[in-house]
Amino acid sequence: MHTDPLPPLGPLSGVRVLDLSTVVVGPACSLTLADHGAEVIKIEPPEGDLMRQLGGSFRHRGMSGKFMNFNRNKRSVCLDLKTPTGRGMMNRLLETSDVFITNMRPGALDKLGLDWPSARAVNPALIHCLVLGFGRGGRYCGRPAYDTVIQSSAGICGAFEASGSQPRFVPLVMTDHITGLIAAQAIGFALYRRGRTGRGESIEVPMFENMAAFVLREHMGGMTFEPPIAPPGDPRILNPDNHPVRTQDGYIAISPNTDEQAFAFFFAIGRPELRSDPRFCSVAARTANSVAYYALRAESLRGKTSEEWLRIFEELDVPSMRYNSLESLVTDPHLTDVGFLSESEHPSEGPIRDIGIANRFSEGTRSQVEPAPRLGEHTLAVLRERGVDETTLRAAAAERALFDPSMEQPR
Amino acid sequence: MHTDPLPPLGPLSGVRVLDLSTVVVGPACSLTLADHGAEVIKIEPPEGDLMRQLGGSFRHRGMSGKFMNFNRNKRSVCLDLKTPTGRGMMNRLLETSDVFITNMRPGALDKLGLDWPSARAVNPALIHCLVLGFGRGGRYCGRPAYDTVIQSSAGICGAFEASGSQPRFVPLVMTDHITGLIAAQAIGFALYRRGRTGRGESIEVPMFENMAAFVLREHMGGMTFEPPIAPPGDPRILNPDNHPVRTQDGYIAISPNTDEQAFAFFFAIGRPELRSDPRFCSVAARTANSVAYYALRAESLRGKTSEEWLRIFEELDVPSMRYNSLESLVTDPHLTDVGFLSESEHPSEGPIRDIGIANRFSEGTRSQVEPAPRLGEHTLAVLRERGVDETTLRAAAAERALFDPSMEQPR
Repeated sequence: MHTDPLPPLGPLSGVRVLDLSTVVVGPACSLTLADHGAEVIKIEPPEGDLMRQLGGSFRHRGMSGKFMNFNRNKRSVCLDLKTPTGRGMMNRLLETSDVFITNMRPGALDKLGLDWPSARAVNPALIHCLVLGFGRGGRYCGRPAYDTVIQSSAGICGAFEASGSQPRFVPLVMTDHITGLIAAQAIGFALYRRGRTGRGESIEVPMFENMAAFVLREHMGGMTFEPPIAPPGDPRILNPDNHPVRTQDGYIAISPNTDEQAFAFFFAIGRPELRSDPRFCSVAARTANSVAYYALRAESLRGKTSEEWLRIFEELDVPSMRYNSLESLVTDPHLTDVGFLSESEHPSEGPIRDIGIANRFSEGTRSQVEPAPRLGEHTLAVLRERGVDETTLRAAAAERALFDPSMEQPR
Repeated sequence: MHTDPLPPLGPLSGVRVLDLSTVVVGPACSLTLADHGAEVIKIEPPEGDLMRQLGGSFRHRGMSGKFMNFNRNKRSVCLDLKTPTGRGMMNRLLETSDVFITNMRPGALDKLGLDWPSARAVNPALIHCLVLGFGRGGRYCGRPAYDTVIQSSAGICGAFEASGSQPRFVPLVMTDHITGLIAAQAIGFALYRRGRTGRGESIEVPMFENMAAFVLREHMGGMTFEPPIAPPGDPRILNPDNHPVRTQDGYIAISPNTDEQAFAFFFAIGRPELRSDPRFCSVAARTANSVAYYALRAESLRGKTSEEWLRIFEELDVPSMRYNSLESLVTDPHLTDVGFLSESEHPSEGPIRDIGIANRFSEGTRSQVEPAPRLGEHTLAVLRERGVDETTLRAAAAERALFDPSMEQPR
C-alpha cells in the first residue's frame, strides 16, 4: 500500500499541553513546546490574552505581530473560568493533557481548582508547571513580577552599572523570555522522568531566582569566595569600552584578541607600527592598556564602509561580524540562505513572515507552521474532539461560558 | 530492613553526559543537566577549559569563581585527544554515555571521530548535541562565534539602537548563556523521544539562529506583515526613558501602569493634582505623553531613600521593587530567606558560596552540590568505573594521553 510520507514531527509529537498563561513568560514556554511538536491548547479569557493588545502594530485588533510570533502553532480555546461551566470544560481538558502550564498567581489558581493537589486528583500523570515571580518562602513571594521588576532586582540593571553606565533595562523582555525557555526545559526533563516512573509532578519556576542565578553564575566572581577575595563582576565582560565599532556607514563587531589577530588589525587600519608599541605588543600589554586599545578600535574604522571592513578582516582572519539593526536582521543574508524567515498566508491576517525553528533534530524537526489563532478560534473543535456533545456546547455558549468566533463574538 | 533515605534526585538522575565543551555555551548546557541530576563528565585538554583562565579572580590559578559556578556538579577527566590512546579512552566513555555535548568546530570534531555518524556507529542510542555559531547552509557557517559577534549580528545591539542608545553589548555573555540553556532544553526533549523510540539522534543548535529568533519574536513587530505595516520594534519595550529611578541613596524600579497605580503614585510623591492633569489622567493619556510621564517619574524620587519609597509604594499597591547592584544581589533578603546562596567548604578552594537550584520538582530536585573539579581530578576514577584496567591507565599516563592530579601535573 502506498501512503504519502508524514511531515517530519518534532521530539514532543503527541504531547498534549494545556496552557493557561498570558503575555510572555508562559506563552514563550508553550511556544517552545509547540515548535518541538507538542499539541498546545491556549486557554484565553473572553477578553483574550493581554498580549493581543500590547504587542504593537496589527492589521486587525488582537492580532499584533508580537502576539502572532509567540502564539503560532497553538490552538485557542476561549473559556470564562468565572463560570462553573467554564471550569468544568477546563477540567475536561485537564483530564486528557500531559502538561499544564500557567503563570497565574497561586491564590487565583487555588480558587479555580487548578493548583497541583487539585489537578493531580483529576490527572495523576499530569506535569503541572507554575511560573512564579518570586519563589515560595521568601519575602517577595506574591509581589507583582513585571520584566522590569525582575531586571532591577536580579542584577541585570546592576550589571550595566558595574560596566560604567547608568542602571538601565535591556530593551527586550529578557527575563520573561528566558524564564519561559527554562520552564519549557524543566517540562522536558519532567516528561523524561515520567517516561520512566509513570508519575506526573509539580514544577515551580520562579523568575527571580532563575534570573539571579543567571547573573550570579557570570558575575559573582570574587564574591564566590568567603570572605570575598575581590568585588563581583567579570571585568572582561564589564569593560565599558567594548561595543560595536562605528564605520563610515554603520557599525561592525570586531574581536582581535590574539597577537596574530591584533597585528593583522593594526596592519588593516594602516598602523602596522603598533605591533611594537609597548601598550599593544602582547595580550598582556593590551589587557593592561585596554582603555587605550578599545579607544583606538573605536576610532579606527571611520574611513571605510562596513562591507569593506568585513571583507578586509575576513581575508586577514580578524574575527569580525556584521552589525544588524532590527530592520537589517529581517533581511540578513545568512538567514535568507537558510530560509529562516519564510512567507506564508495567514488565514485572517494575510501575508506574514514566519520565524524558523532554529534547531535540527535528526529524528525529526517540526516542519509545519500553523497560523497564530484568533481568539477562541478552536473552542468548539477542541471540545468536540474531547467528546463534549453539541447540546452541552450550545448551552455553554448560551450562558457565555465559552466563545468561538464561528458562533458569536466575545463580549 | 532499615535504610537511610536517599537524598532527593533530580529528573535527569541516571543520565550520563559526556561534555566536550569550553568557556560558556557548552558548560552552561551541561551545568543545567548536572543541576537536574545528570552525571556529567567534563572532558578537558591538558591545558584545561579556557574558562579556568578567563573567569576573573581566584585563590588558585584555574579555579576562578566563574569557572566554579559553571562547572560544579561535574567531574573532570583530562585527556589528550591528539593521541590515539586519548581518543580510545574517549570512545570508551562515549559507548557508555546517553548524551554527548560539544561546541567544537565541525571539522575538528570529524577529525576526532566524534561527529554524529561516527559516534552513532559506536552508540546508536546516543543523543549527540552540537552547538554551532551559525547554522549549516548559510554563509556565516564556520565563522568564529564569540558572544559579542552574536550580540552584534542577532540584533541585540540593534535593540539598543532602536531604543535611542548607541549600539552596545549587554554586559553578560547573554547569547552563550541562553543558547546553552536552549541546548539543555533540546537534549531534554530528545531524551523524552528516546524513551519512546529507543533511538538516539543528532541535534544541531546554532547560536545565531536561536538568538535571531529570540530578538525577532519580540521585535519583528510591523515587519511580521508582508508588506511591512510599520517599522520593527515593540515601542513599549524600546521606550528610552524607561529605566530604574534614582532615589536619595540609590535606585528602585516602579511600574505604575493602571489609573489606580498612577494616582496612588501621584499621591505618594505629593502631586495628587496630577490625576486630573490631561497628560496623565488615563492610561491612554499617559501612553500618549510617555516622555513627560517618564521624565516626571525619573525626577520624583530624590527626596527619600529607596527603603522609604519601597515601603510607601508597597502600602499603596504601586508595583515597585528593589534595585540590586551585583554586590547587593549576593545579600538580597529574599535570596537569604530561601537559602539561595549557601556556604560550603570546597576541598581545594576553601569556603565558597554555592548558587541554589531555582526550580522545585515535586518528584525530586537535586539537593547535593558537588564541588567544581580541579583539572583532571576524576580521570582515573571515571576510567576505572568504566572498566579500564590499571596497566592501561599507567601506560596512558606515561605517554601523557591522560592526566590526573593524583599522579602528576599536566604539562
